[in-house]
Amino acid sequence: MPEYIFDESLISTEIQDALSPNLKLRPLAKDDFDKGIFDCLEQLSITGEISQKKFVEQFEEMKKAGGYYTIAIEDEDQGKIVGLGTLFVEMKFLRNCGKAGHIEDIVVHDSQRGKSLGRRIIDQLKHIGKELGCYKLILNCNEKNIPFYEKCGLTLKDVQMTLYTTT
Amino acid sequence: MPEYIFDESLISTEIQDALSPNLKLRPLAKDDFDKGIFDCLEQLSITGEISQKKFVEQFEEMKKAGGYYTIAIEDEDQGKIVGLGTLFVEMKFLRNCGKAGHIEDIVVHDSQRGKSLGRRIIDQLKHIGKELGCYKLILNCNEKNIPFYEKCGLTLKDVQMTLYTTT
Repeated sequence: MPEYIFDESLISTEIQDALSPNLKLRPLAKDDFDKGIFDCLEQLSITGEISQKKFVEQFEEMKKAGGYYTIAIEDEDQGKIVGLGTLFVEMKFLRNCGKAGHIEDIVVHDSQRGKSLGRRIIDQLKHIGKELGCYKLILNCNEKNIPFYEKCGLTLKDVQMTLYTTT
Repeated sequence: MPEYIFDESLISTEIQDALSPNLKLRPLAKDDFDKGIFDCLEQLSITGEISQKKFVEQFEEMKKAGGYYTIAIEDEDQGKIVGLGTLFVEMKFLRNCGKAGHIEDIVVHDSQRGKSLGRRIIDQLKHIGKELGCYKLILNCNEKNIPFYEKCGLTLKDVQMTLYTTT
């Protein structure tokens, strides 16, 4: 059994069943380094050169802290990760000491685009957020992606401001 | 000594020194419930009716998870919290397994507005983010607050989308 970053029981089988049979939607696993997780992530942003050791250390640190619900879609025919997304859960004092879910780092490998995998990832993260009792889910995106996220049931609310500390 | 949510050594004394002497900028403390933390927070958003027990439990859970850098400004003449803000730190696989800092829940009590306390809170959270090695700091805000955050050194980048699960 692979070691997962969160409990597999949070995965909706209904959303899994909407995927073709070779695609498995599941929590990120500790042995996913060998399945091309960084080939997938580097299509989203800068990843740097990460060793397997560093990946495993980061995985363990995130698992220990809790709050990291990273899901992966594996193409089981190829043994490759073809999609990723994270729900990062924040505890607040507001809203009756409620939880806010931050949807982060959604990516689908370009070899698999046009198959609604992005939509399945968002649906799954929404499912997890509701199961965990998050009072809201939020994400930041480029303006050009607004129509996609509106189709996923989200609504434009505010603006995002950024400060890059290293550039 | 009060019990703090994070190590006090991360507080910049330079930013503290810019405040009037009765105002102390420090990490959130476990005994801040009695100092009106919710009187302050309810000026920002819905807080609900939180007991001291629930506040302490949430404080302990956040401290155990790590990643919650909540700062408070206390008016020591009155023994009251008059400002709050949080840097919530996310571990990522992107950017060499880097850290992103989320600035959350900035509030200044209306009795203390016009004294640049909001600016001091942001400066302090920026300081903590840099000390921790966050590659970026982000926040979401209403369009009307863009000029304030631009003065704080942030730049408009993306949009925020939201899904409220309970409404």
